[in-house]
Amino acid sequence: MRPSAAVTQQIGQPAAGGTSSTDAPVADPAAARVSSLTERELIARIRARLPPAPDWVALGIGDDAAVVEPTRNRLEVLSVDAVVEGVHFDRAFTPPRAIGHRALAANLSDLAAMGASPRLALLSLAVPVECALVDFDAIVDGICALAARFRTAIVGGNLTRIGGPLVVDIAVMGAAKRRQVLTRGGARPGDALYVSGSIGAAAAGLQILQLTAERSPAGITGPEAAGGGGRPSSAEPAASGDGRLDELAARFLYPEPRVRLGVLLGRNRAATACIDSSDGLGEAVRQLAEASGVGVMLDAEALPIDAAARRWFEARGLDPVEAALSASDDYELVFASRPRLRGRLANVERHAGVPIARIGVCTAEPGVVLERSGVRQPLPRGFAHFR
Amino acid sequence: MRPSAAVTQQIGQPAAGGTSSTDAPVADPAAARVSSLTERELIARIRARLPPAPDWVALGIGDDAAVVEPTRNRLEVLSVDAVVEGVHFDRAFTPPRAIGHRALAANLSDLAAMGASPRLALLSLAVPVECALVDFDAIVDGICALAARFRTAIVGGNLTRIGGPLVVDIAVMGAAKRRQVLTRGGARPGDALYVSGSIGAAAAGLQILQLTAERSPAGITGPEAAGGGGRPSSAEPAASGDGRLDELAARFLYPEPRVRLGVLLGRNRAATACIDSSDGLGEAVRQLAEASGVGVMLDAEALPIDAAARRWFEARGLDPVEAALSASDDYELVFASRPRLRGRLANVERHAGVPIARIGVCTAEPGVVLERSGVRQPLPRGFAHFR
Repeated sequence: MRPSAAVTQQIGQPAAGGTSSTDAPVADPAAARVSSLTERELIARIRARLPPAPDWVALGIGDDAAVVEPTRNRLEVLSVDAVVEGVHFDRAFTPPRAIGHRALAANLSDLAAMGASPRLALLSLAVPVECALVDFDAIVDGICALAARFRTAIVGGNLTRIGGPLVVDIAVMGAAKRRQVLTRGGARPGDALYVSGSIGAAAAGLQILQLTAERSPAGITGPEAAGGGGRPSSAEPAASGDGRLDELAARFLYPEPRVRLGVLLGRNRAATACIDSSDGLGEAVRQLAEASGVGVMLDAEALPIDAAARRWFEARGLDPVEAALSASDDYELVFASRPRLRGRLANVERHAGVPIARIGVCTAEPGVVLERSGVRQPLPRGFAHFR
Repeated sequence: MRPSAAVTQQIGQPAAGGTSSTDAPVADPAAARVSSLTERELIARIRARLPPAPDWVALGIGDDAAVVEPTRNRLEVLSVDAVVEGVHFDRAFTPPRAIGHRALAANLSDLAAMGASPRLALLSLAVPVECALVDFDAIVDGICALAARFRTAIVGGNLTRIGGPLVVDIAVMGAAKRRQVLTRGGARPGDALYVSGSIGAAAAGLQILQLTAERSPAGITGPEAAGGGGRPSSAEPAASGDGRLDELAARFLYPEPRVRLGVLLGRNRAATACIDSSDGLGEAVRQLAEASGVGVMLDAEALPIDAAARRWFEARGLDPVEAALSASDDYELVFASRPRLRGRLANVERHAGVPIARIGVCTAEPGVVLERSGVRQPLPRGFAHFR
């Protein structure tokens, strides 16, 4: 199906108001704030950063809503996730580009956990008027760069000011065949439990960023510094001077959603249940177990704790296993798989470009148990009020 | 197509964490704040307010993402809109139920302006921890009640705390046949221009609410009063004591999206271009004209200014025509139609349940001109920085 002339004539239409698709001229770009432009001009800056829309986008940004063609024989997978300044990131050590990256990565990770291929995103930005224009651009760049890598068309959005923290809210839609959709609820006793990549690095990286910011406040790039004549706040935070620590920090700032792994797990029907680990591996395992009506026996020795993160935790007197189990901000996939599909899973691993580790087994007995040096103990139940 | 067993088994699944779908018990419901509950318990409160999902929802709230079936032979229409406390509403005089109502109404209005039938919504709420639980419930009730009226399934969402103003961000998806999609860009010279309902009432209502709140601060139901032991802040604001003024206030608080009119205009191909008037009638006309590459001659005498709003504006020394043209927060549809389709349009009007008024004509000459008592003058161009 090709868009009809009646709709396609809108695709190349300029933003409402006829602003051009190049950045509007600004007197002093380094000092400019978003308040120096109109909403239309800001939207034009976003449009200027977007690649041409794929042909299934009948109508992109610029009308009351976007219009797209569904993919034939696919279900649609929808998710929304917001990152809020002061809750999900601290502008003192999170460069604007990373803010955008993380907001979209969280959404793409949700799609991956369902076995869905990303298709499109809608951006909703609530931006303080004092936000530096260079930061606004960098946030959008962070979103657009990740979107381009995962062929996610940004088809629409909303822009509003806010008298408070920056909010980046993104809704995404992906597609998956009906039989390839992965849920949290399909694991059975006897299934093996796996996690992709490594865990703990993002949490260690966050600790490193927090410490570095405390020690070198001059490097802080928060709202006060933004546009204040100092170094542009879109710069990366001061490096720690240690390559391994910078690597950990990057794992927090620029998490890699496991899009390809999720799609391959779904397509090959290699997983019985799947969830992402953004709220922590322990929490992910618990939720998968509860939704599936199974228990889980976790093997502490098998956890793929990032080597540098392990050293970091140990140096700070933390137990690496506990730290890694409760560490949030990793965007790995946690999934169950039938033991007899081990060969199929090895094939998926080869093509996914990320290692997977067998970390436990699903049990008929409910509850999540951690086995460590021969000792079995229930995983402590997380409980967090909304604050 | 019916959902397969593999997916439908998830539909009735309890919220992650196994919380029941009834409201979690709270010690003192009137004084409770959202911080007394976990995120899961708050999500369970939202789920408890939702009707059973339609059968095209393969997987609703409770997994990493929602899964839905697309409608056969329809394009999908997507929009996102956020309302931010202190920018789009003032909690001093906007009851929580109205906050929820207005957030969804803005989105449904965008779909209506495209000729699309609403299908689903994703909610993303950023809530201050000090928000009263009764307010949280009322916001959700306001969304759910409007969603139910327009058969919009709430299939997913996100909940986060925020150290600042309340943000209600909603993404919606609707469906329309390809040839029935209405854009802003199809009007031609000679087309007549119409607007639905009446204009100015919401803006007058907002002024009335602001004055009433100033005069009777005891009736204020803002964050300070919320949960502070006084009257629950989910109550309606103090009535002005004048039925006509309360009617105007209600037009601001509970706008009616013109869903049926939009769908009928698209289905009957009775409009060449359409936009909603939420940013003001003058702005809507200008954007429709620019996107279509036409001019517009507006007839000031033909504007359907709400009678009570006209009296309100006049009593305050305002010119009703100017006030109504620049008045935002009306969710009417502004659309162009070929003169020869007048009969078809009358038929649409009869079934839409809302009157439409012919307010002008599209011209080959660019620009929007207002004709008033025989005098023609260009409509002043709005220009607003992002602040």
